[in-house]
Amino acid sequence: MTKPVNLHEALASFDQIWSPRIVARVNDYDVRIAHAQGEHVWHVHEETDEVFLVLGGEFNVSLRDADGSERTVVLGQGDVFVVPKGTPHKPSSPGADILMFEPGGTLTTGDSHEGAIPDDVDSTTGHELA
Amino acid sequence: MTKPVNLHEALASFDQIWSPRIVARVNDYDVRIAHAQGEHVWHVHEETDEVFLVLGGEFNVSLRDADGSERTVVLGQGDVFVVPKGTPHKPSSPGADILMFEPGGTLTTGDSHEGAIPDDVDSTTGHELA
Repeated sequence: MTKPVNLHEALASFDQIWSPRIVARVNDYDVRIAHAQGEHVWHVHEETDEVFLVLGGEFNVSLRDADGSERTVVLGQGDVFVVPKGTPHKPSSPGADILMFEPGGTLTTGDSHEGAIPDDVDSTTGHELA
Repeated sequence: MTKPVNLHEALASFDQIWSPRIVARVNDYDVRIAHAQGEHVWHVHEETDEVFLVLGGEFNVSLRDADGSERTVVLGQGDVFVVPKGTPHKPSSPGADILMFEPGGTLTTGDSHEGAIPDDVDSTTGHELA
């Protein structure tokens, strides 16, 4: 049987930025949490929507619409935002903790990305909690 | 393009107990929120896990294991807990706000339930936010 995971304790158990931890699995989906700070990379998930829930701090999602125009959505604590599949986006943050739901195996940097992946961006499918 | 939803505002927009509101859709899954108070009903989701995230208050999940024994998991703010598919369970609460992530169309009272559904338990697949 599964055990509860406390998000506050889970967030305090690691320091790495842009390096998601998997806190629960629901069918073939993961619940992941991450510390966000600085710039992520423009990337796209062709096959899945991606939802962000801001647990604390300010979290920004830049999006590129089909006509090429860009805009940035500024999110605060308690905000939920969905990036539709196929939409290029780039997260950034002055410092935030976030929760995501997405299919297990989803790469944090998407099916494709633009330019170099910053050194502090972990391009994986998430890590187990320690 | 989708718009952010603030969970605090969304929770304040309705009073009904055990009556989930859909705040976001992610592929064919729903993100739902609800006010919990009193007793839900023993029920089972045969085909899907169900995850609870406690946004505030105390939330309890009673579970019946395969050997028929029952236990209750007591959850507080920030706790995440998954009820595996096929596990009979009954939520209860002295008062809490919760978030759930489950396939769209999942009935709040499961594929089957035991006994009468309390009058204040809404047996639906969730409602749109007003």
